[in-house]
Amino acid sequence: MAGKHGEPMNFASDNWAGVSPEISAALGEAGAGVAPSYSGDSATARTVERFRELFETDLEAFFVGTGTAANSLALAAVARSGGAIMAFCDSHLAADECNATEFQTAGNKVVRLPGRLGRFSADTLAEALSLYPEGSVHHGRPVAVSVTQSTEIGTLYPLEEIRAIADLAHAHGLAVHMDGARFANAVASLGVTPADASWKAGIDMMSFGATKNGCWCADAVLFFDKSLVGDFEHLRMRGGHLMSKSRFVAEQFLAYLAEGHWLDLASRANRAARRLADGIAASAFGRLAWPAEANEVFGVWTDAKSAELRAAGAVFYEWPFASARADAGPAEGENLLRLVTSFATTDEEVDAFLAVLNRS
Amino acid sequence: MAGKHGEPMNFASDNWAGVSPEISAALGEAGAGVAPSYSGDSATARTVERFRELFETDLEAFFVGTGTAANSLALAAVARSGGAIMAFCDSHLAADECNATEFQTAGNKVVRLPGRLGRFSADTLAEALSLYPEGSVHHGRPVAVSVTQSTEIGTLYPLEEIRAIADLAHAHGLAVHMDGARFANAVASLGVTPADASWKAGIDMMSFGATKNGCWCADAVLFFDKSLVGDFEHLRMRGGHLMSKSRFVAEQFLAYLAEGHWLDLASRANRAARRLADGIAASAFGRLAWPAEANEVFGVWTDAKSAELRAAGAVFYEWPFASARADAGPAEGENLLRLVTSFATTDEEVDAFLAVLNRS
Amino acid sequence: MAGKHGEPMNFASDNWAGVSPEISAALGEAGAGVAPSYSGDSATARTVERFRELFETDLEAFFVGTGTAANSLALAAVARSGGAIMAFCDSHLAADECNATEFQTAGNKVVRLPGRLGRFSADTLAEALSLYPEGSVHHGRPVAVSVTQSTEIGTLYPLEEIRAIADLAHAHGLAVHMDGARFANAVASLGVTPADASWKAGIDMMSFGATKNGCWCADAVLFFDKSLVGDFEHLRMRGGHLMSKSRFVAEQFLAYLAEGHWLDLASRANRAARRLADGIAASAFGRLAWPAEANEVFGVWTDAKSAELRAAGAVFYEWPFASARADAGPAEGENLLRLVTSFATTDEEVDAFLAVLNRS
Amino acid sequence: MAGKHGEPMNFASDNWAGVSPEISAALGEAGAGVAPSYSGDSATARTVERFRELFETDLEAFFVGTGTAANSLALAAVARSGGAIMAFCDSHLAADECNATEFQTAGNKVVRLPGRLGRFSADTLAEALSLYPEGSVHHGRPVAVSVTQSTEIGTLYPLEEIRAIADLAHAHGLAVHMDGARFANAVASLGVTPADASWKAGIDMMSFGATKNGCWCADAVLFFDKSLVGDFEHLRMRGGHLMSKSRFVAEQFLAYLAEGHWLDLASRANRAARRLADGIAASAFGRLAWPAEANEVFGVWTDAKSAELRAAGAVFYEWPFASARADAGPAEGENLLRLVTSFATTDEEVDAFLAVLNRS
Repeated sequence: MAGKHGEPMNFASDNWAGVSPEISAALGEAGAGVAPSYSGDSATARTVERFRELFETDLEAFFVGTGTAANSLALAAVARSGGAIMAFCDSHLAADECNATEFQTAGNKVVRLPGRLGRFSADTLAEALSLYPEGSVHHGRPVAVSVTQSTEIGTLYPLEEIRAIADLAHAHGLAVHMDGARFANAVASLGVTPADASWKAGIDMMSFGATKNGCWCADAVLFFDKSLVGDFEHLRMRGGHLMSKSRFVAEQFLAYLAEGHWLDLASRANRAARRLADGIAASAFGRLAWPAEANEVFGVWTDAKSAELRAAGAVFYEWPFASARADAGPAEGENLLRLVTSFATTDEEVDAFLAVLNRS
Repeated sequence: MAGKHGEPMNFASDNWAGVSPEISAALGEAGAGVAPSYSGDSATARTVERFRELFETDLEAFFVGTGTAANSLALAAVARSGGAIMAFCDSHLAADECNATEFQTAGNKVVRLPGRLGRFSADTLAEALSLYPEGSVHHGRPVAVSVTQSTEIGTLYPLEEIRAIADLAHAHGLAVHMDGARFANAVASLGVTPADASWKAGIDMMSFGATKNGCWCADAVLFFDKSLVGDFEHLRMRGGHLMSKSRFVAEQFLAYLAEGHWLDLASRANRAARRLADGIAASAFGRLAWPAEANEVFGVWTDAKSAELRAAGAVFYEWPFASARADAGPAEGENLLRLVTSFATTDEEVDAFLAVLNRS
Repeated sequence: MAGKHGEPMNFASDNWAGVSPEISAALGEAGAGVAPSYSGDSATARTVERFRELFETDLEAFFVGTGTAANSLALAAVARSGGAIMAFCDSHLAADECNATEFQTAGNKVVRLPGRLGRFSADTLAEALSLYPEGSVHHGRPVAVSVTQSTEIGTLYPLEEIRAIADLAHAHGLAVHMDGARFANAVASLGVTPADASWKAGIDMMSFGATKNGCWCADAVLFFDKSLVGDFEHLRMRGGHLMSKSRFVAEQFLAYLAEGHWLDLASRANRAARRLADGIAASAFGRLAWPAEANEVFGVWTDAKSAELRAAGAVFYEWPFASARADAGPAEGENLLRLVTSFATTDEEVDAFLAVLNRS
Repeated sequence: MAGKHGEPMNFASDNWAGVSPEISAALGEAGAGVAPSYSGDSATARTVERFRELFETDLEAFFVGTGTAANSLALAAVARSGGAIMAFCDSHLAADECNATEFQTAGNKVVRLPGRLGRFSADTLAEALSLYPEGSVHHGRPVAVSVTQSTEIGTLYPLEEIRAIADLAHAHGLAVHMDGARFANAVASLGVTPADASWKAGIDMMSFGATKNGCWCADAVLFFDKSLVGDFEHLRMRGGHLMSKSRFVAEQFLAYLAEGHWLDLASRANRAARRLADGIAASAFGRLAWPAEANEVFGVWTDAKSAELRAAGAVFYEWPFASARADAGPAEGENLLRLVTSFATTDEEVDAFLAVLNRS
């Protein structure tokens, strides 16, 4: 998979990238030695401490193996029989996780809220909540709301919208969850602190993902509201998600969070996305579907152009327009295409891609 | 945690050990580069091929993050409503996995078979099966049997016993699963081929664990009977066990299985266990609870001796005698102690331990 | 709860009505005697035979205790891990059953299809199905579609629409379920045979409810496609829905289905609904929200009028307009009201109600 | 199925009997009229009040459709992830309910305690609890214990044993459940008050069954410890067990509990069992397997004698000796047979049965 000059031009997904050299080195150094299993080791304890510093608050942190595990187990901690979990209709947890949340919660319902460009609004949440009469055993009961930041299609919630959603949710007794599979990209893009972007905006618990941003397997569930931890540790074990040598997850996190490495990685991906988006916006052969606010770029161009790009070695996916909930979609003969950048994306591969795009 | 001369004397568990240098190096080399996620990469394909060679048969192989995930998802693939899964009463899946199998199977029952020294017999299985009248919706129906090799307490099933269990199970339409969290130790100790120890003895599917034997996170479910795969891939995704960068699991397995490395690692652990067991058997201050057939040694001695060993830096766990189902247990003032060796255990730490044990 | 002249004027729900005298008498006669439990009795066998005659086809029939049990267990029979079940967004099974289907299916997703007046269209189903890429483990997979006839808001699907939905569903390998909690009202209103209204229109399995129409506890799951029965009997037992003295359900069904009694009962309810609807449509003090096609009437009038009606003894519920998906709703100061008629509703109570409605 | 002189001689099960005339009449009278559905009616309220009087304490009572529903939903109310529920190995909920409790609890484990003659002891419970280390996420955690009174094989727990079990359970934080499918037979046999036999002996919640004793469908879950109700109402609805016309369950209970009718019915069954047991004990052609303390009689005789009895019209089941956990079982050529009496069993059919038994 190489471009004209050997550039990979791979924009398939940020989870196609490898491991950052710093994190790889840390893993290598940590390989030897003996340490307690099942999160009883000192690296895990240091990582939890590190999360507390980073988020400037007390919190609990638990490691799991995947983002899907993080989402579904976090929500399982607050689920109840007949529970309803509110999320954007095409969010990852609602549409791309094979019912993991429904399963881990023994059948809680993921209520799919409509919206635009990957986001729902507080008003939409209010309308959805209005359909649940107080005390009705028939309708079930809302238990949580989940927002994804950055979203599945590379947009961002303004922090005030998250705050409005969270305030409404809390007024109804719901827990507020953030799917932060790309939280680093959001923080880097927004230029705020991790605290601002999470608990200060009303988030109670978060799936903190590092796998898409330079780790190989590092996801954590953070509970800013420690009272929500509940049975989380039993749920994690019951789900087969307590790793015996979880100290290696800790080692990844320690390297990831050291000296701003995580934000460096995310900023690289974001910069590459901006370069790519700017190039597409300026191109005569394609256009930007909507602004790229994090590390995902959505473009629209013809099938012929896609074929040409692929022939040149570019890798990217067609995306169903319906799930974007955007105003203007591809015309006849055009397609919506998703390009994802990562910490490993180089200016060279972006430019090589744009060169083919602009080739008449 | 160091012994008199700096030896760690750590016999807590083989999952306290780190990563073998060879596997660590392979992981480090594989860190860079771009590759398809979710097992679509070539390293995964090569690993599956490697498993086929190793087991001298066609098979399907799927990666998961933990041994508990492997056991519970493998059994979920063959579970049915009202299903009963037969296993030794104190096996890991029956007693130590927080109901993971009951959960992943939506409430199949793990029927806990009695036995001795970590094993049940074909006769016991026959008796258990006799309690299920054909076609009774009330009693439910047996769907699978699981054997653990080597067992939770370091013993081995003779292959003929496994064959007898499997024949009986197959005659009743049950799938036969092996929990192979320590399969390498079993194969190394028995001196047979992986094929002999598995499908040739009637095993249909296996949790093949490498994490306890020098990997940091590498478990696979192998289906020798490919017709049993069923919905496994959906079950794995639903359970949050499809890792996005699973190619790093593949890289671990490739290094693990290359040139007999896996059996070297297991043999080291087994040899250390034998050295330890021989020393305990010869000691005037303790005795062997039962023969050490793989990499776990169970000894009996006084509380005072345990305290002395711990003071010298040794790490090991007391074990509930009840779960061993052995004939003769500790006397008043004595305890049953478990010592687990790993690929990283050295002769020096074994000898240092024995020196303290034999100190009068 | 009595009207001006002692009429109850109770339009709360058809499940507030009692038992038809004929069915009550049959139950009374059947009380004595000894018979096999758990559906092994001859009355059950005769009922199954009766269903076959009634529907003019071979089928399997199983009794359960509630409509929610019927829906959730029928769908559980065809569910798979990661499964998606398509239904109208505000159908009973999607909105009013406390996640029973999600629970009985171990987390299948009920996908809530948009529509109008209680129905979705084949086109909407096609769009929903288009979001499931073939073979994607992430998105899960559609397994069934469910239509409700008559609908939750008293409308009817034209049989051609059901056929179009069923054809599309079958082309995608989905099972087609009908929630027939008010199937009798639909058949009576459509003036077709039970066969026409079900399997001849493409229905594979049905929740056949009699409880709302003059029985006290009689629901059945009918499998027109017997190949879908699968593990239904185990699922029913696992769910606690195999009644030991289920012969009394059989006795209710036998009386219910004898000599067209079931359609007489439904016709009475439908006629009462039409009388009520006509009166509302002709009234200067209210209007009909949409045509009453079965035994539910939805009217719109002011809060003051509702208060006056209630003061006069009428019983009925306000209904959330949002869940009707109708074009024109109540204006400011008005409400949407639901009035349900049953076999026991009399002309007198309808007229008494209309008299109060028309009182200026 | 008639004996020599027309007697049915039916001892298959008490759930083969019909409805007591008093209860049947009450049901018939209640058939007409309109009343709120889903337990909002006054008959339900009166029934709950009646339970409070009967048990001389405050309590909550909820109706369900089957004994299996009662057991599994009651235990689901106190279940937690990784939970263990302790019960006699061959109790109905452990062995005859198709994993209903495992399912309703999303995979709690039913731990099957050994014992003798249908009962386990407080000592056995203590041993089982000792295997759960405090705070271990691997082993899970005990959440409840369940005792069956009268037991599955017609024996009774002495109240002091129940008290000892309950005290131990409470000391470990477990809820104490009684499966009272045949509670009436136990109370009638013990000659104590319902309060003595339940909450005064430490029972926190109970499956109160009336279906086996003259109702056709009437089971209730009683919470003597109202703090355990928790999410019960949502669990019941989610499980499809909230009957719309549940007032008819109430009517059955009202007639059942009126003027000691329930104990009259149970006493009749118990007396018939005693007559049968005495006759068997005195017979030269069979013997009593163990004392009949409620309404089940277990006898031992030859296959030839069983064939003769069946030829004469008697109906009864062979019983697996293994599940009785008795000392002395049937000899070669003999079988263990279960005979259940009900309120409807007559002296004539008992005597007719004994006459055939004693025929040489």
